[in-house]
Amino acid sequence: MTELFNAVTIADARKIISAHYTGPKNTEVIPLLTAQGRRLAEEVRAREDVPGFTRSTVDGFAVQARDTFGASEGLPAYLEIAGEVFMGEEPKGRLETGQAWQIATGGMLPAGADAVVMVEYTENLAEKTIGIVKPVAPGENVIRQGEDVAAGSLVLPSSHCVKAYDLGVLAAAGVTAVKVFCLPRVGIISTGDEVIPPEEKPVPGKVRDINSYALYGAVAEAGGRPCLYGIVRDDFHQVRKSLSAALTKNDLVLLSGGSSVGTRDVAQKTISSLGRPGVLFHGLSIQPGKPTIGAAIEGKLVFGLPGHPASALIVFHLLVAPLLYRGSYFDPENGFWEFPLTAQITRNIRSSPGREDFIRVKLFLQQGNLYAEPILGKSGLITTLVKANGLARIPAGKEGVEAGETVEVKLF
Amino acid sequence: MTELFNAVTIADARKIISAHYTGPKNTEVIPLLTAQGRRLAEEVRAREDVPGFTRSTVDGFAVQARDTFGASEGLPAYLEIAGEVFMGEEPKGRLETGQAWQIATGGMLPAGADAVVMVEYTENLAEKTIGIVKPVAPGENVIRQGEDVAAGSLVLPSSHCVKAYDLGVLAAAGVTAVKVFCLPRVGIISTGDEVIPPEEKPVPGKVRDINSYALYGAVAEAGGRPCLYGIVRDDFHQVRKSLSAALTKNDLVLLSGGSSVGTRDVAQKTISSLGRPGVLFHGLSIQPGKPTIGAAIEGKLVFGLPGHPASALIVFHLLVAPLLYRGSYFDPENGFWEFPLTAQITRNIRSSPGREDFIRVKLFLQQGNLYAEPILGKSGLITTLVKANGLARIPAGKEGVEAGETVEVKLF
Repeated sequence: MTELFNAVTIADARKIISAHYTGPKNTEVIPLLTAQGRRLAEEVRAREDVPGFTRSTVDGFAVQARDTFGASEGLPAYLEIAGEVFMGEEPKGRLETGQAWQIATGGMLPAGADAVVMVEYTENLAEKTIGIVKPVAPGENVIRQGEDVAAGSLVLPSSHCVKAYDLGVLAAAGVTAVKVFCLPRVGIISTGDEVIPPEEKPVPGKVRDINSYALYGAVAEAGGRPCLYGIVRDDFHQVRKSLSAALTKNDLVLLSGGSSVGTRDVAQKTISSLGRPGVLFHGLSIQPGKPTIGAAIEGKLVFGLPGHPASALIVFHLLVAPLLYRGSYFDPENGFWEFPLTAQITRNIRSSPGREDFIRVKLFLQQGNLYAEPILGKSGLITTLVKANGLARIPAGKEGVEAGETVEVKLF
Repeated sequence: MTELFNAVTIADARKIISAHYTGPKNTEVIPLLTAQGRRLAEEVRAREDVPGFTRSTVDGFAVQARDTFGASEGLPAYLEIAGEVFMGEEPKGRLETGQAWQIATGGMLPAGADAVVMVEYTENLAEKTIGIVKPVAPGENVIRQGEDVAAGSLVLPSSHCVKAYDLGVLAAAGVTAVKVFCLPRVGIISTGDEVIPPEEKPVPGKVRDINSYALYGAVAEAGGRPCLYGIVRDDFHQVRKSLSAALTKNDLVLLSGGSSVGTRDVAQKTISSLGRPGVLFHGLSIQPGKPTIGAAIEGKLVFGLPGHPASALIVFHLLVAPLLYRGSYFDPENGFWEFPLTAQITRNIRSSPGREDFIRVKLFLQQGNLYAEPILGKSGLITTLVKANGLARIPAGKEGVEAGETVEVKLF
């Protein structure tokens, strides 16, 4: 059955998957403080100007700028201290020509004033008179009403993933409840006759379930809501029952755990039996991660991930994670940018042309240069992931890289 | 009072703070699946070998390697198919010289076997005979017992922050409950006569509380447990009462919100009244972020952050975040590495020698090169943070950078 499918590139796999996945369309309204990491289901526009009035950005004196023109240390401009702005209050009255009002950072400019002189450029001459020793331009040392956010303007676009500082922006806009897309739910099923739960002590032939737990963490980190469906044997009916249950409650299901060809065959047959279009590709032209199944069933996705933990996580990061944290493979705000760093690789690495290679690396800085030390080890070893702090990409066209050559890398 | 303190560098501020902070020492035991992002309170050692037996890494035939020496396409080595390894089971019997046992990826090598021949390098000749067309070396295509993790060896060090894939490593080691340090608790107090909660509509002179919400998000992101203490007026007794309450329940308190000199003076007096040693520094030689207070009271830290949201967040990232996610400013696993990328800045930026400058930038890739476009705007504008996706550092010794010059940057 495997022979019906040719290995596809990551780019092609993404195109194929994108055509079959929409992600969760349900939305919910949640309190502002819980919105971090969630995707906005509607754009947020400012109801009022932020700030709602023209403010001082320094401690000093509000003035009419033209009263300070030509002022210098040798010839200060003398102004009458005619008022004081109190924090949080609207100044009473109007600043007239020749006047200076005391004002603190964040204070509201009185009507008539158009700039603020920093206290450092003033000298107190008499109780009611101040000397300005440096001129200010109109608008200097103030934030104008609406300069941060103008009423009606876009604060955050729909689909934007809410960052920490966005909570501040939303608070500024008076938003205390946020409409967001429901978190994508991800079911994780472990399969394999040799796999046992971590609390059991393995007898010869058995291994503890690593992938379910590593994937649980990876899903949570990527902004999905993971749910473990336990371990099932490589039996068509058992896998089908578990997969069917997981598909009912989740947007996406990861089959993982076993490493044998039996596991993959059962996965493929089970997926095909559950709905259309079924298996989309079987095999990726990458290393590690080749034995990957991509499938769609009635608008939901199923991935059969490689049994090797490191391979499974690399495929997860390439094909699953972007769907969880962004809803698609393409980032409309920042473009397509997965391997943003460049580093010098410290060893020769062979690679086959025609496939993309992903090398676990330890990234380190030395005298301002970034180096990538390949972590050698079979992809079945989970400890290679612990030692690595990054991933290097060798494009499909290359036959390898030589020590000292520049490679694209990303930090985990 | 301000004049008693000289502005300190970030490096000095860190030394001073480190001498007064230990972080939470309480520990708790939590289920494996909730351990992500938590710091281990004890090292984890493997109780058994991982894997617990020698496994095949390919689908093929277990053999004695010496039986394959010299085999080729023209002259295959003929072996008797004498057994089959079933997944998850201990093979019964012993593989003898001249034999090949069928085995799948992850299967347990039978006693007597020392290598596996990939199925691609075999040809089925008769029902019970197989031809090997390529020799294997002893140990080829197998993971030895304990090769991933040897019994008794260190799996993860104490103080390690648990990553997604560490959940898999811990599961492999049979760890289902993890002893971790309690999350550092961070109280956030907003002060300022002009500050109102986001649900209120600001009248002239009032502004909504931005910092509390942005800091709440930043604390959660850095692995702390944030708690908002609301907004208090710039009054010694009110701030003292609120700060005193926050210090009782938290490891660290952030005073923030107001931007006026009144806010800072009240903060400083209040801190000094609550215990020893009190204020450690008042003023940082950085831009933005100068008006920062660092203080310690009986082993807990208090930070008086600048009122400008962007400034407050930059100081938070430099002085508070590392204490939350790592427990200290220095990273024993990865060294000191805060600005790991280099980019070409796209505009001239002026800077004063004697202070470090932090410039909000928009990072973008163009033909493989990373560029940093400074986001211009007063530090009081929260929207400059939304537009930026990174921060560039200009060292204290420089008077600025010219367009095209290389700067150290980090992604938010």
